Amino acid sequence: MEFATIYWQDERVYLIDQTLLPNNEKIISTNDYHELAEWIKELKVRGAPAIGVAGALGMALAAIYSSANSKDELFDELVKARGVLSSTRPTAVNLFWALDKIWSEIMHLRDEEMFRIRLGVVTKALSIWQEDRMICMRIGKHAATLFNDGDTVLTHCNAGSLATVMYGTALSGIYEAVSQGKKISVYADETRPLLQGARLTSWELNKSGVPVTVICDNMAASLMAKGKINKVIVGADRIANNGDVANKIGTLSVAINAKYFGIDFYVAAPMSTFDFNIIEGSMIPIEERDRSEVAMFNGIKIVPDDVPVYNPAFDVTPAKLVTAWISEKGIAMKVKDIRNWR
Amino acid sequence: MEFATIYWQDERVYLIDQTLLPNNEKIISTNDYHELAEWIKELKVRGAPAIGVAGALGMALAAIYSSANSKDELFDELVKARGVLSSTRPTAVNLFWALDKIWSEIMHLRDEEMFRIRLGVVTKALSIWQEDRMICMRIGKHAATLFNDGDTVLTHCNAGSLATVMYGTALSGIYEAVSQGKKISVYADETRPLLQGARLTSWELNKSGVPVTVICDNMAASLMAKGKINKVIVGADRIANNGDVANKIGTLSVAINAKYFGIDFYVAAPMSTFDFNIIEGSMIPIEERDRSEVAMFNGIKIVPDDVPVYNPAFDVTPAKLVTAWISEKGIAMKVKDIRNWR
Repeated sequence: MEFATIYWQDERVYLIDQTLLPNNEKIISTNDYHELAEWIKELKVRGAPAIGVAGALGMALAAIYSSANSKDELFDELVKARGVLSSTRPTAVNLFWALDKIWSEIMHLRDEEMFRIRLGVVTKALSIWQEDRMICMRIGKHAATLFNDGDTVLTHCNAGSLATVMYGTALSGIYEAVSQGKKISVYADETRPLLQGARLTSWELNKSGVPVTVICDNMAASLMAKGKINKVIVGADRIANNGDVANKIGTLSVAINAKYFGIDFYVAAPMSTFDFNIIEGSMIPIEERDRSEVAMFNGIKIVPDDVPVYNPAFDVTPAKLVTAWISEKGIAMKVKDIRNWR
Repeated sequence: MEFATIYWQDERVYLIDQTLLPNNEKIISTNDYHELAEWIKELKVRGAPAIGVAGALGMALAAIYSSANSKDELFDELVKARGVLSSTRPTAVNLFWALDKIWSEIMHLRDEEMFRIRLGVVTKALSIWQEDRMICMRIGKHAATLFNDGDTVLTHCNAGSLATVMYGTALSGIYEAVSQGKKISVYADETRPLLQGARLTSWELNKSGVPVTVICDNMAASLMAKGKINKVIVGADRIANNGDVANKIGTLSVAINAKYFGIDFYVAAPMSTFDFNIIEGSMIPIEERDRSEVAMFNGIKIVPDDVPVYNPAFDVTPAKLVTAWISEKGIAMKVKDIRNWR
């Protein structure tokens, strides 16, 4: 998979418009951070790591195209850009993390000449882009060792290239194993309510030549019962100190099914996802999202108006259901091995 | 729940058009069996028991409105009606069962006067309607004893009033428990791909004043983990001699999750669903359905064109995951108890 979801070229930000997938594959570009902020808001780019990178590149646009005549004016503009970009996805931790990194660089350079500050922002943004790419690549190198020639792997949601700059987290090991010549095929859970598996995971695996079949979330157990799934790999939104994993709603059910059928269940995530301050999974706050995500489909009502809907964005999979955790630091088969990564 | 999904009144067949639910609640009626056959084909009435009843009532329309001047002409018309009605849903076992019952009655009466034969068909059709209603009611009386005041029950797909004449199979016990004054609330799995839970189960429970909340299929485990589900009850499409249960895709995953969390898992079905000739669940043929059910949604594509889809209609839940089977004959807690129902 040598396809970048978001990248910098000729002093513009390019990205694939994910709202049009899988029906239309369109690369859009801008040199205006306001427009980029709108695109983040509209989910044209999504996935925690990719949003962080987009925020950083937005700051780079603000720095380059600033019309400031003085450092004071430049700082004013950068403060404004930071505000505009950070308000796009108010719960996206990676976005604030990336903007903070850029801001530290600006503070670090504040006594330098104006052009040095502008250049510093761009350089830092590109290093954030590059770091995301390298972390995903390293996760992939480690995870690939878990896959054998002929494996059929189930994944849930999209923890792939489209959620990062390139390669992804859960899918990175699959791309790497395939590039090593192993034959791997994938089942992608469609992932209700937002269908990231049906729309995005299937699209990117297929584009990379990895055989992929889409199933509804409730079909995975039936495939496992028939011995058609060897391994499961998913990403993570947050991993607690005890190894419990918060990830896209539906992950827990997949993990329980995998346990029942004796199938390995892997979690792949960058170190930034490990939150050693959270003692256990039950302490991870779970966002409940809008009723309309479940009750409406492209404007068509599928649940009666007066019937309530429960729509949690994530669930928590207990560590005892996880066979291995994979990060850029390696593979942990036991919870205590994760703690050595601190 | 005193609402009939399909009924006979003033020598016409009335039914609720299920293709319009949940957005529009419309009762339609006809005295033309050709039109009724079209409605069965168009899924205006669905659910195995309800389809069987519709077929029988279609024969009653053919018998009443026949313009035959002789018994030979009447037989010709009834043969034709049987052909038209049986070709509507070629895999619906209950439809053939009901049409065969009507046909036996016709054969039984073949030497009688013409008006006696016509009357006999109508009487038999109404008795099939009434029998379905009584079986569901009896299932409900038994199942209700399993529910306690304050229970929160999960169900999958629609095994309710809308799948039968009245009451349903899985939902009948809930309606009965509620009518006995027990407070029961329900979570309804939306049931991808065809959303019978979101559209139909939620609609009929809500209409009957039973509190119901819709969830995506992949959210049930997260509710169970939080202790928010006490019991699970589902219907069945076929039950093997060893107690294995074929039911709507997704049932197996719910059963495995229930086992993991120590939650009772009940299966409610009429005796006609028990197939003692099938030794075990793995021998039950599983229909694979059209790709478009998963890949398209109301004409909108959600899976890339060149990505395959796996779409089994049913899965098989092993008997060891079932806490109790409920039929009109009672409650079986062990597989050997089912065999006593033979």
